[in-house]
Amino acid sequence: MPINAYATPAAGKPLEKFQYEPKELGPHDIEVKITHCGLCHSDIHLIDNDWQMSQYPLVPGHEIIGTVTATGSEVRSFEQGQRVGVGWQRSSCLSCEWCLKGQENLCPEQQATCVGHHGGFAESIRADSRFAYAIPDELESENAGPLLCGGITVYSPLRNYGVKPWMKVGVIGIGGLGHLALQFARAIGCEVTAFSSTPEKEAEAKSFGAHRFIASKEKGELDKAANSLDFIINTVFAGLDWATYLNVLRPNGKLCFVGAPPTPIRIYAFPLLVGQKSICGSVIGSRSAIREMLDLAARHGIKTKTEILPMDQVNPAITKVRENKARYRMVLVN
Amino acid sequence: MPINAYATPAAGKPLEKFQYEPKELGPHDIEVKITHCGLCHSDIHLIDNDWQMSQYPLVPGHEIIGTVTATGSEVRSFEQGQRVGVGWQRSSCLSCEWCLKGQENLCPEQQATCVGHHGGFAESIRADSRFAYAIPDELESENAGPLLCGGITVYSPLRNYGVKPWMKVGVIGIGGLGHLALQFARAIGCEVTAFSSTPEKEAEAKSFGAHRFIASKEKGELDKAANSLDFIINTVFAGLDWATYLNVLRPNGKLCFVGAPPTPIRIYAFPLLVGQKSICGSVIGSRSAIREMLDLAARHGIKTKTEILPMDQVNPAITKVRENKARYRMVLVN
Repeated sequence: MPINAYATPAAGKPLEKFQYEPKELGPHDIEVKITHCGLCHSDIHLIDNDWQMSQYPLVPGHEIIGTVTATGSEVRSFEQGQRVGVGWQRSSCLSCEWCLKGQENLCPEQQATCVGHHGGFAESIRADSRFAYAIPDELESENAGPLLCGGITVYSPLRNYGVKPWMKVGVIGIGGLGHLALQFARAIGCEVTAFSSTPEKEAEAKSFGAHRFIASKEKGELDKAANSLDFIINTVFAGLDWATYLNVLRPNGKLCFVGAPPTPIRIYAFPLLVGQKSICGSVIGSRSAIREMLDLAARHGIKTKTEILPMDQVNPAITKVRENKARYRMVLVN
Repeated sequence: MPINAYATPAAGKPLEKFQYEPKELGPHDIEVKITHCGLCHSDIHLIDNDWQMSQYPLVPGHEIIGTVTATGSEVRSFEQGQRVGVGWQRSSCLSCEWCLKGQENLCPEQQATCVGHHGGFAESIRADSRFAYAIPDELESENAGPLLCGGITVYSPLRNYGVKPWMKVGVIGIGGLGHLALQFARAIGCEVTAFSSTPEKEAEAKSFGAHRFIASKEKGELDKAANSLDFIINTVFAGLDWATYLNVLRPNGKLCFVGAPPTPIRIYAFPLLVGQKSICGSVIGSRSAIREMLDLAARHGIKTKTEILPMDQVNPAITKVRENKARYRMVLVN
């Protein structure tokens, strides 16, 4: 039976109703009846072909929550009726160095849910069960979906770059990623500082776990924060004054990019040397990190703050994300 | 009794004979009769006041080997006649967060051997015994001196940034620092690649432990090395094409600066993200790392390749370093 979905026919175009015949259910596949799908900034990048890898017609959506309706012959970990989630990564080779190390997110043959495959803005999807995740009962579907891409994107660097509870963590940009980063950094025991160009976000940033709020565009505020943090996650796509943020780091500090500004980062080596500082990056996360993250979210009540729209309102939802007006994640429901 | 030394009277000037009265021997101090002192690039930076922190008259020299001739009342770890070494760092507060973590090289109150104090181009020096090191018998004095600054500068990042024996390490610049980095990387079990703009250095680089030599200025050579290394130490002060070196790194790779080019590093965030790569820095090393490094050098026969001149030939030695003609470290002997 064909799957009803929403697809963009060409770069930058609005989504339209679209039907496609799914591939045969492979031995490791599950079919998932989608109940919720988050709308991530990277969906917009795919719609616009910003990364030169989009294939049209393109069905975006990779923060999928739904119910298993069919299982392939080799699927042991899921059963029909079970609630599952699917994120950005659809598959990997499962045999290369990175896969064997449990770092499937670095596999050179990895495939994305919405690149060359049709994603979650649809009534259902067929997905590889080895890249699907049981959703803990404590998590509401509308909050859990965005954890599968946005959540893991900010949790993974906290985990992999050695952030410890006694450290001081900063989050640049309090949006879809940033509001989750504040919650995860708080949950793992850190002192948390929010940096935002929007001073009005202060109260809400604190409600997400920030101990301190810095209005980053106010003159002198960043300089006052010099030498105060051990780890900063940048979630924004704008080119900022990275040298000043480097100066906000204490010795051994790391400035980690999970948002990629289009303009180059320009910094001097000298402050990296004398403070033993790092500039680094992180991309989604491994399967084991996603499981950890979901457990942690369930235990700590970490929630994506979402705005819900019906799936057929996908275009207005996209407009809201493009205008940076989502607070903080749009989720489409069937 | 006054100490006979060589000092530069003002920025950039040749060294002259100089006498000074040493401070009283403090309870933790030792007096060291200097037999050997290496000439490091950072001595030249101090002579020239490149870092705006020099105080004149300035006695350079911080790769000191000598014999203990007097000990303060609290000195327990050294005795008269013992061979010791003193490096870049003269002291630290021993009570701040970084000192308590065993990272004295990050102490904000650390003092340098030749900044505000007179260094090792002299017949003797009074130094804090807590920042002096017993030299293993296996090491010759003329080879050991440069380990105390050059050696620790390249060993410390291998240790602190998690380089493991199964990793592939690159060294940019085969000079005073680089030829030691090749030896340490080889000693800790890694596959080692030398990058040099001087193709004539290939055979010698391999004799220092390089498995592979890349003539970095030859067109296309760096591109051919794409995605092949886990850790690169940059020892040169020139501005290179850092984006290309970033591309030489494999996923999770780190590009570490121990030499600080005066021009900014300019890189895009995107390759940092998708490869989870880092750009980082390192500065000298802690006391425990220096002890480890000396043990490792003794066990593996790691030697600075030196050219020896008498102490009164300090100015010709400086000229040779300025002209980049030292192979690979000048050492002055009394």
